[in-house]
Amino acid sequence: MCRMRVHGVANTPTPKSADEADERKGWRFASSDGEAPGENVTPDPIHPEYKHIRELYFENNKDYGGRFTVPTLYDKKQKRIVNNESSEIIRMFYRAFDKLLPEKYAKVDLLPEKLKESIEATNEWTYNDINNGVYKSGFATTQEAYEKNVKTLFAALDRAEAELAKSPGPYYHGANPTEADVRLYTTIIRFDAVYVQHFKCNLREIRSGYPALHKWVRYCYWKNEAFGGTTEFTHIKNHYTKSHHQINPLSITPLGPDPDILPLDEEVPAVKAALKK
Amino acid sequence: MCRMRVHGVANTPTPKSADEADERKGWRFASSDGEAPGENVTPDPIHPEYKHIRELYFENNKDYGGRFTVPTLYDKKQKRIVNNESSEIIRMFYRAFDKLLPEKYAKVDLLPEKLKESIEATNEWTYNDINNGVYKSGFATTQEAYEKNVKTLFAALDRAEAELAKSPGPYYHGANPTEADVRLYTTIIRFDAVYVQHFKCNLREIRSGYPALHKWVRYCYWKNEAFGGTTEFTHIKNHYTKSHHQINPLSITPLGPDPDILPLDEEVPAVKAALKK
Repeated sequence: MCRMRVHGVANTPTPKSADEADERKGWRFASSDGEAPGENVTPDPIHPEYKHIRELYFENNKDYGGRFTVPTLYDKKQKRIVNNESSEIIRMFYRAFDKLLPEKYAKVDLLPEKLKESIEATNEWTYNDINNGVYKSGFATTQEAYEKNVKTLFAALDRAEAELAKSPGPYYHGANPTEADVRLYTTIIRFDAVYVQHFKCNLREIRSGYPALHKWVRYCYWKNEAFGGTTEFTHIKNHYTKSHHQINPLSITPLGPDPDILPLDEEVPAVKAALKK
Repeated sequence: MCRMRVHGVANTPTPKSADEADERKGWRFASSDGEAPGENVTPDPIHPEYKHIRELYFENNKDYGGRFTVPTLYDKKQKRIVNNESSEIIRMFYRAFDKLLPEKYAKVDLLPEKLKESIEATNEWTYNDINNGVYKSGFATTQEAYEKNVKTLFAALDRAEAELAKSPGPYYHGANPTEADVRLYTTIIRFDAVYVQHFKCNLREIRSGYPALHKWVRYCYWKNEAFGGTTEFTHIKNHYTKSHHQINPLSITPLGPDPDILPLDEEVPAVKAALKK
């Protein structure tokens, strides 16, 4: 998983600080000055001199006029971006590079044949109403559009909650993670941390309002390195809150929620109080 | 209690809509066109032609150059504002108008002699760190000032939570409401509804994060008409979210949290799920 994966909806920037923000330049590569935590925060290894992803887009077409989106799949031999659509890239990764991988990774099957139909049906509303739903809510410029989108988002969260509540767990489709988990995780892990406050997706939090989603997202984060090891809350929070000046003009990043994600064996204080009675 | 009571810290406006916003004009009287819900939403009965509270301030001093704050205590005979400091007005109301009141109201004693010292000690930190703490957090213009103030606020909420947890209840000092309840209620009733999102006071919500405060504020709201009957969430939410353009430039009012306040016999979904186990 790529920490910059945003399902192709956002051409939003990651300025180093509010002072340096230039929203038109879009996604920024990390510099190597230790500015932000995380093992995978490195300059582009192929082009260490590049500061923004846009430079990859301009590399083969200096007149490129489209959006500078992530993820981007780059071919080192051809020296060009070969794909920038997350839903296509995710599937290429299932098989295309297996021969380059240790067996334990090559054998991972995130789209088993017998679940393919069910997963694709889930993708439809997960993508439109949840993955994109938070952006449609947060970037709405009228009260009416915001309310319509946030209601659709929470109806879809209710649906995901019901699916997870009836799953044997710990993953969406049982014992093994699938594409359904990967697609849902990217939004749910950010939900309390940024979307509730920054995008006004605040009918309910995950931690107090969606017990099955909360149990599931914590299992992914704490028990599976592929999820937890590629999640860095400092990046998540700073990216949103310091990039969208039309939403948060002073670029102040909220301290909460505390903690970013609850440990597996802890619940919100209201639960602890109720269980004590 | 006055629904516009803000402890003298805010000279913030209540524009009818973003289009009509003129922040410099400050608090606005309701018009009589049924624009907002609530029984007490009426024009100024003495000056039905006045549109803003500032007109009261200019009435006797057309060169008035200070802030236009609420509450304002106005003397109909002298035709002038006689006080605009909430902590003083609240105490005048305890005895000064008793002879005009039915006995059941006249006999209410919100500052019993034996609790006076304790209540005044509580007022000190409640006022500075909670009532004003939400404003200091929300109006901070630097990350550093925001973080300092929001930490102080939540330390004070932790302290109020501990006080309420050891109170015999249902009120702060036991069987009867006191000044301590009145002062704390004005902030806590608005906390989840606006401060968590709009002022970034989001380390925890009251409903999921502070069981004793939650139990107490719900008792005040649902069981005592003096609290519940003077609380109108539509006004609370619209006032903040549509007034502070430096915080919320598009004036979009969040739909959540849902509901504004939980019924007495209901808890957040995480509690319901934990109790079912």
